[in-house]
Amino acid sequence: MQAVPPALERLITDFQKLPGIGQKTATRLALYLLRRPAAEARTLAESLAALHGSIQLCSRCFTFSETDPCAICGDPRRNERLVCVVEEPGDLMVIEKTGAFRGLYHILHGVLSPMDGIGPDELKIRELLERIRQGGIDEVLLATSSTVPGEATASYLMEILHQAPVRVTRLACGIPMGMDIKYADEHTLARAIETRQRMGE
Amino acid sequence: MQAVPPALERLITDFQKLPGIGQKTATRLALYLLRRPAAEARTLAESLAALHGSIQLCSRCFTFSETDPCAICGDPRRNERLVCVVEEPGDLMVIEKTGAFRGLYHILHGVLSPMDGIGPDELKIRELLERIRQGGIDEVLLATSSTVPGEATASYLMEILHQAPVRVTRLACGIPMGMDIKYADEHTLARAIETRQRMGE
Repeated sequence: MQAVPPALERLITDFQKLPGIGQKTATRLALYLLRRPAAEARTLAESLAALHGSIQLCSRCFTFSETDPCAICGDPRRNERLVCVVEEPGDLMVIEKTGAFRGLYHILHGVLSPMDGIGPDELKIRELLERIRQGGIDEVLLATSSTVPGEATASYLMEILHQAPVRVTRLACGIPMGMDIKYADEHTLARAIETRQRMGE
Repeated sequence: MQAVPPALERLITDFQKLPGIGQKTATRLALYLLRRPAAEARTLAESLAALHGSIQLCSRCFTFSETDPCAICGDPRRNERLVCVVEEPGDLMVIEKTGAFRGLYHILHGVLSPMDGIGPDELKIRELLERIRQGGIDEVLLATSSTVPGEATASYLMEILHQAPVRVTRLACGIPMGMDIKYADEHTLARAIETRQRMGE
């Protein structure tokens, strides 16, 4: 389009490749940066260029890290007998923010999805079994999402860990904190009733 | 946070400086790029770094351009007797996409906003008057938004152009195309009734 200078057009095209960013948002972001001092676009450019260079996967839990082992696996204050299994490094970050978990992690890097050709071999499941085989782990907390593929992955892990000398647990499902039950969906409400907890526990 | 490698943290922080991008979206974008081949982040970095270097303001209409005059001002097929006044270069891009306008543009680079200290001198209004003074313009189409500051800016321009030898027009306001009038807001509906058009015109 005649109205858009090529350098601007190129940035808009590149922004659009990011997930959840359509043409309108891409245009808005690019025009915003163009109106701001050049240093702001340059800073973002430098952060992007430096991203992959310094980050690798922790060889123990497979999260993104600049060190190996990562800061969590290398922290002696963490409880290494408890391992939380998550889908993605982003899930680890969300759980860390709660401050409610002091064990270690294991990142699967995906969920089982036969339709997309993602079976157990595409995930870090063999590595999880190897960690358990080496011993020293009492409990494996399955913290995959409560989506259909997340539940299927948890069920699969539950099954193959059946014989392992560890306790296998799952994140509790139920009404979100602070939610009026009028607004809870029926599946969540049914699950909350089935897994109801004794007061004071 | 221990869980986030510094290079990732830095990119998340930089993404958050963009308008409409909160911490969750910034984290999602950064993790997405980290999972993708390094070349994708690098391409985006290069587009960002190149952005300001090649783009300047057209000295005639003040849009962003790699040439001066810009491609539109320099196009002899455009009708230079008709000038469309818009708030931002992004508005020009939206109007160009419609293909319904074949005149030239004038970018104000903002709207009047006394609360934010933006008066006529902060916008390219003096330059607009100078273009009109030089002659050759028959019509000025005020295409600022139909927001309160956009309307105020249009009213101000209408007033100072009152004596100028040009016809001053405004974008029509009314029911959006394809909208059921049940869903139109009452101000728009009232305006559409007031400015009703004779069928077949």
